[in-house]
Amino acid sequence: MEKKEQKIMVAVDQSEESMHALSWCLSNLISDTNKKKLLLLHVKPPPAICSFDTAGYVFSPEVIAAMEKYSMELANSVMDKAEAICRNLNAADITMERVIEMGDAKNVICSTVQKLDADTLVMGSHGYGFFKRTLLGSVSDHCAKHAKCPVIIVKQP
Amino acid sequence: MEKKEQKIMVAVDQSEESMHALSWCLSNLISDTNKKKLLLLHVKPPPAICSFDTAGYVFSPEVIAAMEKYSMELANSVMDKAEAICRNLNAADITMERVIEMGDAKNVICSTVQKLDADTLVMGSHGYGFFKRTLLGSVSDHCAKHAKCPVIIVKQP
Repeated sequence: MEKKEQKIMVAVDQSEESMHALSWCLSNLISDTNKKKLLLLHVKPPPAICSFDTAGYVFSPEVIAAMEKYSMELANSVMDKAEAICRNLNAADITMERVIEMGDAKNVICSTVQKLDADTLVMGSHGYGFFKRTLLGSVSDHCAKHAKCPVIIVKQP
Repeated sequence: MEKKEQKIMVAVDQSEESMHALSWCLSNLISDTNKKKLLLLHVKPPPAICSFDTAGYVFSPEVIAAMEKYSMELANSVMDKAEAICRNLNAADITMERVIEMGDAKNVICSTVQKLDADTLVMGSHGYGFFKRTLLGSVSDHCAKHAKCPVIIVKQP
């Protein structure tokens, strides 16, 4: 029986931990003989809440545009870093796709797993970027429970 | 560089979900060319709390002996079932070890990971055996946070 291509989604952000999770994935899940596709997912926070508490506060269009630009640059730099890790680990021959979404990380990760029909989700154990301090650990907790595929939580050693 | 033998620990109980987690592990983690050792871990509940709420109640030695016997038979039947799955998935040539411990599942799983120096922990997403109803999901949550290795949470499809 021919196996269908396996899609492995790795949630990446600017944290060292998420890059460590990616390295673990490349060393432990990609090295076998099955056909695999790597989906690099980065979730940008929704512009209005970025890293600030904006309850009741309206930003000017210029500020929103600047935040959006920063958020896009951050997403691209995260993706560049992730792809560099793939190249360093000699995983250059695997199929790779960048996926950039926006919204509440924990919900967006789970819905993207379903939308792209991922077979496995890999992520760090801590919060996700800007949400780290306030929601420590809750993103991976939520995804472990709600994502419709096996979830691999990789901690920084 | 020669890679050291990877130890994969799978926490198994009488649930279908933990057996599904084992199957997932055999199909996705064992199939590559690295040398792997499979540690099948079953944690028996401590005798005094078994499946009953025993606050302030002392069991007779006969009852305790009967519960202990039942608990050991259950452990063996879980292990037999797990090994049958390994044989069915043609994983007969991997090194396999049965590990039976006793205590509070979430703490025992994490401490056994460390004691046996496991590289990866695989488990179902729900509670663990008798604890399922009262502590739904909390065992895997706890292990995802506290086990000193990457944790793979596999849900029943």
